[in-house]
Amino acid sequence: MPVETIDRSRQELDAESARVSGEVDHFFSELLASTGDGRERLYEAMRHAAVGGGKRLRPLLTIAAARLFAIDRVRALRVGCSIEAIHVYSLIHDDLPCMDDADLRRGKPTLHKAFGEAEAVLAGDSLHALAFEVLAHPATHDDPWVRSDLVLELARAAGPGGMAGGQMMDLVAEGRQLDLPAITRLQQLKTGALIEYSVEAACIMVKLPMEARTPYRGYARNIGLAFQIADDLIDHSGSEAAAGKRTGKDAYAGKATFVSVLGPERARQQASFLVDQAIEHLSGHGSEADLLRGIARFAIERDH
Amino acid sequence: MPVETIDRSRQELDAESARVSGEVDHFFSELLASTGDGRERLYEAMRHAAVGGGKRLRPLLTIAAARLFAIDRVRALRVGCSIEAIHVYSLIHDDLPCMDDADLRRGKPTLHKAFGEAEAVLAGDSLHALAFEVLAHPATHDDPWVRSDLVLELARAAGPGGMAGGQMMDLVAEGRQLDLPAITRLQQLKTGALIEYSVEAACIMVKLPMEARTPYRGYARNIGLAFQIADDLIDHSGSEAAAGKRTGKDAYAGKATFVSVLGPERARQQASFLVDQAIEHLSGHGSEADLLRGIARFAIERDH
Repeated sequence: MPVETIDRSRQELDAESARVSGEVDHFFSELLASTGDGRERLYEAMRHAAVGGGKRLRPLLTIAAARLFAIDRVRALRVGCSIEAIHVYSLIHDDLPCMDDADLRRGKPTLHKAFGEAEAVLAGDSLHALAFEVLAHPATHDDPWVRSDLVLELARAAGPGGMAGGQMMDLVAEGRQLDLPAITRLQQLKTGALIEYSVEAACIMVKLPMEARTPYRGYARNIGLAFQIADDLIDHSGSEAAAGKRTGKDAYAGKATFVSVLGPERARQQASFLVDQAIEHLSGHGSEADLLRGIARFAIERDH
Repeated sequence: MPVETIDRSRQELDAESARVSGEVDHFFSELLASTGDGRERLYEAMRHAAVGGGKRLRPLLTIAAARLFAIDRVRALRVGCSIEAIHVYSLIHDDLPCMDDADLRRGKPTLHKAFGEAEAVLAGDSLHALAFEVLAHPATHDDPWVRSDLVLELARAAGPGGMAGGQMMDLVAEGRQLDLPAITRLQQLKTGALIEYSVEAACIMVKLPMEARTPYRGYARNIGLAFQIADDLIDHSGSEAAAGKRTGKDAYAGKATFVSVLGPERARQQASFLVDQAIEHLSGHGSEADLLRGIARFAIERDH
């Protein structure tokens, strides 16, 4: 691909990414507006965690996938923000002293550092419930079948068969040497399930039959793993400024990662292969898939 | 009411309550069956918290309310178990060292005591997600409008506008002297919202228009407060064996309760008045409401 085409694709991605970030911030600012009663501190804590910062990858994916089917942007944004609410709650709980004990997140103090542990538990739980409230609301989709299906699949992606299950696998794996299939399975649950849902949600919104969803799920699965490898590479060698959090933590905790098993060079090759595969899944689409292609292409250049 | 009628009503309530407890245990045992992979410990933790023990008041209320409208028992049970999953997750998180720091729950070690803190956070989060998965599944109701509405209202009852919001009010209130309206508002969110939903869910399942739900919501609101007063009375004077947890904790934490504001005698009178009101709300119904009447009548005799 000519350099100027790559540059344009990168610029479009950056512009769309910035637009989505602004929209997500706006959505959470409105949703979490002051209550003026004894719950004010809870809303303040939720705003601290949900407004500002973060790459907003999941809402971006939903909006990019929504383009394939010409889905209304406001609706796609509601779905994307539901997913982001789940993602943010999981980061809050993940950062707790009893979990990763992190004090820095997205360049700010973690929620329990800024507001206290009890507040962090409750703010996480509140965002978790809000995700489903937003999704099940008639404003998300006219068709109740779609709303109900969106809820069902998000609950699956977030729960013990998805993200939460992957986190437990991660916890159990500490200090053990996992092999490649085990790490892949762990990451497919821990981060992959929600990323896959971010794309599949668009399929649900247009009631695409299950068998027609295969390429989109394949795309999402590939970039989910590619992102994870990129994260592992940053954790292995990147700077804290780029990551917005402490790096080198996984190695310190004795966690097996793609990089610890494959080594940085093979990990980089594998990520690149996954990106090519992801883009291949979109071959049935024209320019309406360019944003998804751009996300995949720049998936592994996270430090820019 | 003649003594023998009261006795019969009590026996019927006890029998139905035991039946529901068995059904809820069975439901969670099946739902949380072993996975045989790295998530096994997560499922074990969820089973520890969700199977066995507890009064199962919320599923009992849903099943009792379902009788009013001849709703299929299996479906009502699914809804009741979703509510119980939310209740159980909230107890797990509430018991954490950073919250109430409790070591005893339902006569067993609390989850973080038995499995560790990180496991308790994740098991709570998993049950939270599972609640919505169960609710949104087609097996819960044929009509997707109903499923979507069940999800929307449960998310509202559990989130920052309901239970989680009430817990934050409780946290903020520690050591402060709240007045009666403030305590009532706090409890209506913290425990009342989920109890109200337990009854309203049956109205949603038969698509009862909002205005027709008033008596059922009134019933639930009254017994929710009556239960809370009963709990406060147990905490004030009851035995640990009856409560299945440490008592006297609220006074120790300097928390304002109905008993600390009203005194035990007036609190008891208020609970009794609320029960009468609750039963009055059911006056449009015949014997199909007897179970709901029984629940209200014995609401304040929790130590039996």
